[in-house]
Amino acid sequence: MTFFNGSATAPVSIEQIKAAGDCAKAKGFIHNIRDMGDFSFIILRTANDTIQCVFTPGKSEFEIADLRVGQTVEVCGAAVEEPRAVNGFEISLKTLQVLSNPAGEYPFAINKRSLNLNIDTNLNYRPLTLRNPSQRAIFKVQEGVVRGFSEYMRSMGFTEIHSPKIVSIGAEGGANIFELDYFGNKAFLNQSPQFYKQAMVPVFERVFEVAPVYRAEKHSTSRHLNEYIGLDFEMGFINGMEDVMEMETAMLKSLVVFIKENCKKELSMLKAQLPEVGNIPSVTFLEAKEIIAAAGRKAGKWDLDPEDEQILCNWAFEKHGSEFIYITHFPAAKRPFYAMDDKNDDRFALSFDLLLRGLEITTGGQRINDYNMQVEKMHRMNLDPADFETYLMAHKYGMPPHGGLGIGLERLVMKLLNLKNVREASLFPRDINRLAP
Amino acid sequence: MTFFNGSATAPVSIEQIKAAGDCAKAKGFIHNIRDMGDFSFIILRTANDTIQCVFTPGKSEFEIADLRVGQTVEVCGAAVEEPRAVNGFEISLKTLQVLSNPAGEYPFAINKRSLNLNIDTNLNYRPLTLRNPSQRAIFKVQEGVVRGFSEYMRSMGFTEIHSPKIVSIGAEGGANIFELDYFGNKAFLNQSPQFYKQAMVPVFERVFEVAPVYRAEKHSTSRHLNEYIGLDFEMGFINGMEDVMEMETAMLKSLVVFIKENCKKELSMLKAQLPEVGNIPSVTFLEAKEIIAAAGRKAGKWDLDPEDEQILCNWAFEKHGSEFIYITHFPAAKRPFYAMDDKNDDRFALSFDLLLRGLEITTGGQRINDYNMQVEKMHRMNLDPADFETYLMAHKYGMPPHGGLGIGLERLVMKLLNLKNVREASLFPRDINRLAP
Repeated sequence: MTFFNGSATAPVSIEQIKAAGDCAKAKGFIHNIRDMGDFSFIILRTANDTIQCVFTPGKSEFEIADLRVGQTVEVCGAAVEEPRAVNGFEISLKTLQVLSNPAGEYPFAINKRSLNLNIDTNLNYRPLTLRNPSQRAIFKVQEGVVRGFSEYMRSMGFTEIHSPKIVSIGAEGGANIFELDYFGNKAFLNQSPQFYKQAMVPVFERVFEVAPVYRAEKHSTSRHLNEYIGLDFEMGFINGMEDVMEMETAMLKSLVVFIKENCKKELSMLKAQLPEVGNIPSVTFLEAKEIIAAAGRKAGKWDLDPEDEQILCNWAFEKHGSEFIYITHFPAAKRPFYAMDDKNDDRFALSFDLLLRGLEITTGGQRINDYNMQVEKMHRMNLDPADFETYLMAHKYGMPPHGGLGIGLERLVMKLLNLKNVREASLFPRDINRLAP
Repeated sequence: MTFFNGSATAPVSIEQIKAAGDCAKAKGFIHNIRDMGDFSFIILRTANDTIQCVFTPGKSEFEIADLRVGQTVEVCGAAVEEPRAVNGFEISLKTLQVLSNPAGEYPFAINKRSLNLNIDTNLNYRPLTLRNPSQRAIFKVQEGVVRGFSEYMRSMGFTEIHSPKIVSIGAEGGANIFELDYFGNKAFLNQSPQFYKQAMVPVFERVFEVAPVYRAEKHSTSRHLNEYIGLDFEMGFINGMEDVMEMETAMLKSLVVFIKENCKKELSMLKAQLPEVGNIPSVTFLEAKEIIAAAGRKAGKWDLDPEDEQILCNWAFEKHGSEFIYITHFPAAKRPFYAMDDKNDDRFALSFDLLLRGLEITTGGQRINDYNMQVEKMHRMNLDPADFETYLMAHKYGMPPHGGLGIGLERLVMKLLNLKNVREASLFPRDINRLAP
């Protein structure tokens, strides 16, 4: 019988280690060992840093021959200034205690500045490749993006929600949905929190969610994942979809400032050139087709393909100095049933995409809030309102004008960091060929 | 062609409305209408409040006969002090503009202080029942619990991660797992982020995750959900499972302070009596059995049942004034294969539960970090290490001593607020009989 009073400790920071003088202590992985003749460097990898430690025979009270990469250790020695080392100091080692031993040698060098593995090898060995400082830096930036998004949303009066992912009907319909057996009933993995975030607008007015989203798409491209993290928000009492677009623009401005402040070291390690979020140009689908035509290409009748998106981004950058561009007023027939039609021309929906550096990172728009209008549109699109009974409950008993959007976290991180493949921005990606690790 | 510069606005706060004088404006739902003879009250429900508005014939420039509960409106009038109203003021209405109309009348009164519906009716009409201020208050507290947890974790050097929920092998094994078809392969919904958070310890040393967890348990009780939100953390370089227990104790202390500060109004509305987090008593499984025996009951050989847990909580409260109690050193045979055995007595595992007000809200412990020890224990438990190849990759190439835990968010909120059923703490709960809304 004992008691716990909460005497937990935060990890020692690099500044504290640096300032500790003669009895600096640190715990971490042996990341690298370099024999320099008269002495050796032992590079220690900690939670957020690497620390240069120096083994000197006679001075260091342990055998270096016993050490190898992959061991975890606690070291003790004098922190001394060394401008050539990362963080401007090194530890002149006195003692070293081994805390754990690996059972094998890494199948490749994880301690190089850049791993230079092909993407499949990188992903097959994900528990190891993520130990590389440049690789893990991507996920500190990912964390920063989620925080920057969430904190901005909160500052604007949004409440964070958690909606179920096992559902009786998918938000996007179609064949791109994973099915599962739910105690003898057919169930699905949700393709977006769409129905739930809409249902929450009459509750909290403004809501956001950060959660997994599932798409059973059979594409195997550098920009598709079958499970990804959606950054979603939905807001009530809007005057039009423009309010949603202004909110996204403001959020992105705030987000870029946030990660510049909070992920300095990682952005520098990754040599990231973040985009400027200034005034983001916005063109309609019809205007977009003209821009594409002027570039000597014929856009699709209903939608834009990746090459079209690249042309539009090039145009926005050349004409307006923006790496972002909004496309609005897509053909209603190709947008979901919940999209509000443009009352001036109902062939088009009040919906938009946001492109960044050639890639769609957001889809959003104004939703239908009137019950009768929604039921009528379902009939028009050959959907049976009876299948959507609980979804329509929110409409039936009253909903304000509202709209929102969904952002793919991994795509956003990929584009912010100029990564080549969206899989690089997912810790353990899921694609049509990959279910492990 | 237009531009978006991010001119988004935060919602007007209740203090701003109160201070607006003669031209106070507010948007929201008509929550209630009460005819008082010479005048009428129109109660407006906004994102976080209700505002008493007064319709006075002659003074108010609209017809009250046209109004009904469920409409969304924008009102304008004079904000005047009124000590009897919530927030100490009311709006003497001048104009009212209807923004949207419901298509039906609520099937029950959502504007009562307490809904008094049975749980099934409450859940069947979830998009409506959540509009009740007391119901939605639960989820502002839930949001506060998630924030309080996340912010404390960050302050202690933990990095937030996002791990996949579609997996090739479940973390807990057994039959309580949902299966799905993944492009022709068998896949599962993860029962916990266990394997992934362990794999991330050598990457970031300390990690946490807030994400859905799936259990295909066939129980239908007041404390089981088949999809819930797990608050998980895992920390490296521990001296023993006690470090994990101290971290949880410290987090809970911080969390309770956080929600007291950030959810004042909601806690008061829900008449919540939050537990004190002081020194939490901790007993071993064997000691727990003695306490249970002393209460005149025989505990199970391998585990505790809900009645045992209630007895232990009563004991902790009576003897030590704590509504929390840790139970440690459970029989190893009933704990997962990754649990570290007690080296003093390997019949028992270095694992623990935390109980609050009669219910288990946490399972945690120290994990095996040595590759050979883990492989040996798998053999002992009739598991084939080949099935766990990518899991064991982390061990094979080196892992520090580490441990962690998982907390069920809905259970924690249920117990903090003294709710009767865990479903009340889930926006859209999933149980063996419920897949919608």
